[in-house]
Amino acid sequence: MDEIRLIEVKEEIHADNKVVAQKLRDRLAAEKTFLLNLMSSPGAGKTTLILKTIEAMKDHLRMGVIEADIDSTVDAEKIAAKGIDAIQLRTGGFCHLDASMVEKGLNSMNLGALDLIIIENVGNLVCPAEFDTGAIKSAMILSVPEGDDKPLKYPLMFSVCDVLLVNKTDYLGVSDFNMAVLKERALTLNPDIKIIETSSKTGQGIEEWSAWLRESTLEFIKGN
Amino acid sequence: MDEIRLIEVKEEIHADNKVVAQKLRDRLAAEKTFLLNLMSSPGAGKTTLILKTIEAMKDHLRMGVIEADIDSTVDAEKIAAKGIDAIQLRTGGFCHLDASMVEKGLNSMNLGALDLIIIENVGNLVCPAEFDTGAIKSAMILSVPEGDDKPLKYPLMFSVCDVLLVNKTDYLGVSDFNMAVLKERALTLNPDIKIIETSSKTGQGIEEWSAWLRESTLEFIKGN
Repeated sequence: MDEIRLIEVKEEIHADNKVVAQKLRDRLAAEKTFLLNLMSSPGAGKTTLILKTIEAMKDHLRMGVIEADIDSTVDAEKIAAKGIDAIQLRTGGFCHLDASMVEKGLNSMNLGALDLIIIENVGNLVCPAEFDTGAIKSAMILSVPEGDDKPLKYPLMFSVCDVLLVNKTDYLGVSDFNMAVLKERALTLNPDIKIIETSSKTGQGIEEWSAWLRESTLEFIKGN
Repeated sequence: MDEIRLIEVKEEIHADNKVVAQKLRDRLAAEKTFLLNLMSSPGAGKTTLILKTIEAMKDHLRMGVIEADIDSTVDAEKIAAKGIDAIQLRTGGFCHLDASMVEKGLNSMNLGALDLIIIENVGNLVCPAEFDTGAIKSAMILSVPEGDDKPLKYPLMFSVCDVLLVNKTDYLGVSDFNMAVLKERALTLNPDIKIIETSSKTGQGIEEWSAWLRESTLEFIKGN
């Protein structure tokens, strides 16, 4: 049956992806380069948070950024303007990154000269959660204006991430977002997830987030 | 009507989506039922706007709603609580609706008794834009906190929609969102797109949007 064969193809693609992803992780360990996969909805604040993270960390670690976008290069241009090695992956309609796409990005970077690379995944809470990118750790941003019900609606994303950044806390005063309820919902899905409240506007949480990223990177470098 | 009908749908990759979509439009014309496809990022305010639309329109037109969600039924429960016929399509990880999935929803509704059905698509600015659902018209919501750069990053979504609702205008005072720039970017991609500024909190634009929807529905009913 055609339909069953199609499902097998999809499973094969997933299986291949896991192999490519593990191969990437082995290579990152050999090169002592930490790779973080950052995911969120469109407009949750990924690029601005990365810019703030660069400011907080670029004197401590050698950083690179892989930007993924359907069509544009606006984000990569902002990153490159900070003097950071920035690669733009144009996914041409694809809604996520898989390990092979990330590998293409890494192939064009000098891993030996970089301690930390951040992937800004495509703005999407669905598909990126389903594909192993080969990253060492994954983080997601949920912005306050999106609402505290998102763990109910996009559970896989909350389940696969190591860190949840609850961003745009500067909107809390004009929103009915319930932080306690959000945290309970996220922790029910993923008891190990580290939750940090952030705002690129006020600076809240940027140091805590940068500290986690710096420590995770150094631990990875020393452990490999 | 409190009971939620939950339908599990899967993507049938081999189906010719455009053929199924056109078949659906022929059926909707025969039944004189207008079908609107509503798309946005997660948390842009689709469900709340639908609830406001129901309040504004349910005395004028007989309405139904098809909710699409990866996993939950929270949105359909809110709609059903308004006494509106609500179907929940559970996409099981898929990031969009195609025409076959919508057909499954329509098959469980009494089209002859409904003038207008709104599809709340999966929260995603990428994949839903790529699939014809069989709807007569499509609308998208962009919420102010997402930013005015979204037409640059998700051009297809802005290109395929008949209406752009710029929602959560109550956030404009605490945001650097530039409405004039946003409109220019959207109109460059799609000169025919109708742009309405809305806020479910203040009520701004709800009447203009409901009027467009009511007139489009009546025009469709009379023209078929």
